Amino acid sequence: MSGTLVDKLHACAAAGFDGVEVFEPDLIAAPESPDEIRAVAERLGLTLDLFQPLRDVEGVDAEEFARVLRRADAKFALAARMGIGTVLCCSNVATATIDDDDTSAAQLRALGDAAARHGVRIAFEALAWGRYIDDYRRAWRVVELAAHPAVGVCLDSFHILSRGHDPAAIRDIPGERIFFLQLADAPRLELDVLSWSRHHRLFPGEGSFDLVDFMGHVLHAGYTGPWSLEVFNDTFRQTDAARTAQHAHRALQWLEDAVARAFPDLPGLSMLPDSAAPSGVDFVEIKAEDTSAIEVQLAQLGFTSRGRHRTKPVTLWTSGRARIVLNEQHARGAVPHLAAIGFEVDDAAAVSRRLAQLGAPRAWRRTYASEERLDAAVAPGGTEVFWTQASDAGDPAWTAEFEHGEQLRPPVVRGVDHVSMTQPWQEIDETVLFYTAAFGLRAESATEVPSPDGLVQSRVLAGPPSAMGDRVRLPLNVAPPALAGHGDNGALPQHIAFTCDNVRALVRGARERGLDTLRMPPNYYDDLEARFDLDPAFLAELRDLSIAYDRDGDGEYLQAYTATVGQVFWEFVERRGAYDGFGAGNAGIRLTAQRGSRQAGAGR
Amino acid sequence: MSGTLVDKLHACAAAGFDGVEVFEPDLIAAPESPDEIRAVAERLGLTLDLFQPLRDVEGVDAEEFARVLRRADAKFALAARMGIGTVLCCSNVATATIDDDDTSAAQLRALGDAAARHGVRIAFEALAWGRYIDDYRRAWRVVELAAHPAVGVCLDSFHILSRGHDPAAIRDIPGERIFFLQLADAPRLELDVLSWSRHHRLFPGEGSFDLVDFMGHVLHAGYTGPWSLEVFNDTFRQTDAARTAQHAHRALQWLEDAVARAFPDLPGLSMLPDSAAPSGVDFVEIKAEDTSAIEVQLAQLGFTSRGRHRTKPVTLWTSGRARIVLNEQHARGAVPHLAAIGFEVDDAAAVSRRLAQLGAPRAWRRTYASEERLDAAVAPGGTEVFWTQASDAGDPAWTAEFEHGEQLRPPVVRGVDHVSMTQPWQEIDETVLFYTAAFGLRAESATEVPSPDGLVQSRVLAGPPSAMGDRVRLPLNVAPPALAGHGDNGALPQHIAFTCDNVRALVRGARERGLDTLRMPPNYYDDLEARFDLDPAFLAELRDLSIAYDRDGDGEYLQAYTATVGQVFWEFVERRGAYDGFGAGNAGIRLTAQRGSRQAGAGR
Repeated sequence: MSGTLVDKLHACAAAGFDGVEVFEPDLIAAPESPDEIRAVAERLGLTLDLFQPLRDVEGVDAEEFARVLRRADAKFALAARMGIGTVLCCSNVATATIDDDDTSAAQLRALGDAAARHGVRIAFEALAWGRYIDDYRRAWRVVELAAHPAVGVCLDSFHILSRGHDPAAIRDIPGERIFFLQLADAPRLELDVLSWSRHHRLFPGEGSFDLVDFMGHVLHAGYTGPWSLEVFNDTFRQTDAARTAQHAHRALQWLEDAVARAFPDLPGLSMLPDSAAPSGVDFVEIKAEDTSAIEVQLAQLGFTSRGRHRTKPVTLWTSGRARIVLNEQHARGAVPHLAAIGFEVDDAAAVSRRLAQLGAPRAWRRTYASEERLDAAVAPGGTEVFWTQASDAGDPAWTAEFEHGEQLRPPVVRGVDHVSMTQPWQEIDETVLFYTAAFGLRAESATEVPSPDGLVQSRVLAGPPSAMGDRVRLPLNVAPPALAGHGDNGALPQHIAFTCDNVRALVRGARERGLDTLRMPPNYYDDLEARFDLDPAFLAELRDLSIAYDRDGDGEYLQAYTATVGQVFWEFVERRGAYDGFGAGNAGIRLTAQRGSRQAGAGR
Repeated sequence: MSGTLVDKLHACAAAGFDGVEVFEPDLIAAPESPDEIRAVAERLGLTLDLFQPLRDVEGVDAEEFARVLRRADAKFALAARMGIGTVLCCSNVATATIDDDDTSAAQLRALGDAAARHGVRIAFEALAWGRYIDDYRRAWRVVELAAHPAVGVCLDSFHILSRGHDPAAIRDIPGERIFFLQLADAPRLELDVLSWSRHHRLFPGEGSFDLVDFMGHVLHAGYTGPWSLEVFNDTFRQTDAARTAQHAHRALQWLEDAVARAFPDLPGLSMLPDSAAPSGVDFVEIKAEDTSAIEVQLAQLGFTSRGRHRTKPVTLWTSGRARIVLNEQHARGAVPHLAAIGFEVDDAAAVSRRLAQLGAPRAWRRTYASEERLDAAVAPGGTEVFWTQASDAGDPAWTAEFEHGEQLRPPVVRGVDHVSMTQPWQEIDETVLFYTAAFGLRAESATEVPSPDGLVQSRVLAGPPSAMGDRVRLPLNVAPPALAGHGDNGALPQHIAFTCDNVRALVRGARERGLDTLRMPPNYYDDLEARFDLDPAFLAELRDLSIAYDRDGDGEYLQAYTATVGQVFWEFVERRGAYDGFGAGNAGIRLTAQRGSRQAGAGR
């Protein structure tokens, strides 16, 4: 985390952690004495569970080992002074010259004697890049040979799973000899393991490691100590510590829940309240000081104005099952942006309990008598997420609060296909965890789109297909840092995509009502012609209506886009066959076309 | 580069390029027709040298090859329409099913026939991750087998050197069969080659590849075509295209010069004017609306005020060979920051010629009659770099322009040890190239420092040791993006370090004159005690004087720091023995202490 050691202690306590490891460089850099740190932790109700690391302590010659003992003695005394019972020693990287278990064991035994004199014990860990000892199974063998009550092992999921070592042998270690446990997830990268470890670790549930299986082995071995996170990550080092701690704590809750569900035989684990993934999108809310430009667009598209909310400056527009709420309340100075999304869920009360237990910040909106009270949480990045009981019986109850609407027009779209949100790079992992842990969405795929303003990383979260064949789909786009720095959110807008039966008819209808869609470049259609053997009349129609096209082994995809208003545009998609993507190959073209119309707009 | 295809053409023309490759996705996304692009390039004096890429064209079955031919024919026609003579075909990644040179050769021959019908030719390139063909030697074998006048090879330094393939066999390819050459450098990364290629390529001279040797092979083979850069890099995609193009052009000039020097037998290559690396730092200039806080510091440290410039609001302070210029001219609103550095060089006129040829932007300052006229350039990031003729005869001539100085005090420092500059992450590679290509400094080492605000990447540029044993040293620090986004430059200040014979005496003297140095935390000295077997009296002195310490196999290092004023602080270093580092292990402690005093200052 960012900040000083005391900053970190406050952040961890506020997030609900029981204890922390003390990382030596933090202590050395701290202006507070070790006694002050101990006292601050005590006041905050945090235990100090581990002092780490003591490096390069074994596999060395006698002369070097004399220096090791001198250094270790000072650190054991320091740990004891701080009330820390365990000191982590990691396998030798730099000074080892003796590749021999008996030597390492004898040296750990001598260190154990020194530690015991100070009333502390040592947890020996195999680093994935250790000179000789780089496998937890060998570290355990050495600890077994050392046969000293103050010497045990530390297990770190990164060092074990990054090397592809089978964690099943953890079950062969007596639980009481596992002195400490460090957890980290990580994306699967083909990178040297040291760089991977130092820069790219993630909290549980955010990477590719099977930590549920890993924890099964650790707990079945009989380990009863802390579940500690050791996550080196360049982003967390520079972002708000309090927020990182909350994020971390949520990841541990998710992991405990998943482990409890996977291993019902394990006692004492807490589960989160059950809740199924949302089955659909109930509504999307666009907020701005002035939403009139959006209203014009929706009317031209053929949406129905369902009138104005009876107590607030809020209007509702619908078409099919798509519901758009336009909110001008408390929006001074804001350009149109995606402010909230509502999910349809099977059991709204269960979702509320689950979100509360995960410590998700509540979004609170004033409601008046006889108004529907909707539960909502604030997702990372500030988007408010509501959840409402799914119902097959037409419009949900809350829509009755809108008055003086026009007569229902025939639907031009069926519903919401996906909601694409722009995330700052600092928040993408936290956002993924939020939607997966709280709502049961799954991180399905990741891609990158070359835009004229930089490479856009995109990750898709999705729910399971509903009975009606729909799914909740949330593509999350990460703006390139330079773009984010400019504060030009229009450069990477959010968008809401609607499912249509016939995009061509929709575009034609909109044109008749005066709305032109985003112009795709002519060269794009020449390329479609070269790539796909399309019927010439169909291709001409796509070209004329400026509709983008994609095809894969599963089916076809047609897409059209409106101009961007503020930070939002609308998309219309027609999925044919079992096509389940988003036309990723078209996104770069679309971003270039949007840049062009933005600049043309700025030049007017 | 960022922007649209037309943006890129303008940037390349302005930077002095002769021609460009057309990357197909840029053309497809462009609103301009192929004819317009051709016309724009013609007007700008740019040739269109290559159309690329045509993917997955060989090693396929007959049915797939029919589709390939259909697609290729459209693209050959497009290239011809744009006046592009060569189309790049890369080895098959996705659809290859036949691992057979004769099949691939026959298919390239058929493609050659199709290309020839449109008057274009194809350059076949082995991608480093090609399904079957991933080595340029095999690509050449297939081209040889194809035996078609319109079929040759394209050589890409990345695909060859990333795989560690020996480039010497390039000499066996007849030069006229090398249809195209693509150059990229890259840092040595242990990463899968596809990600490495797509995100981390660099311009020549900025990475680890030996491109001089590589070019020797290509030119000795008889290649006479363009030297084209193909550099996929996440940073350039999001930063100013005009600037990236200048940067790229400078890298090619550097490469041509280096190749000309390495291979005097090769005709027709341009060399840059000779110039030796700077032997020392002549002066450092700090600029601010109000420099008085810096003046107080320098006086308390024991520097001599050499008075005020006779025509400008500029003062000079010196001690030993260290010269600090404080500049209040045209500095409204600016806090103290490093504005310029002056290098002592052997041949100032040669440096001026070299910088002019490299297109380095000139820094221009008004001078009056009888004033020294110093040449200067603007480095990336805006620092002005001056160069002056080195002389052993005391103060340089320009110092005579300062009047009413006080009597020289005994020197407290010897000279400038290093100047540490903070660089935005977007500019670090450009800055490294600037100082290496223009001034002959060398990129020596890279490290990273954990700070409480994020990880600081640090790269050291240095010159060769001078006759007096000094070297020019420029550590460049890259701020973590989140910090850079805050605009809080004080969080990662620049600093100027002075060489001292006795840091302890300097700190004592400064204290007597009322200046306290930055306080290192007591825990730091406890750790020094545990790590090094230091004489207790010496350790007590370090602790009392708040001096940091380091030791390695070459010698010892003592360092002390002042408080930060604006964006600048001073450091005092005492190098013992042959210690050549910067006390990297102390930097994180120092950054934490600076954060503490910054926050204490903000709280006052």
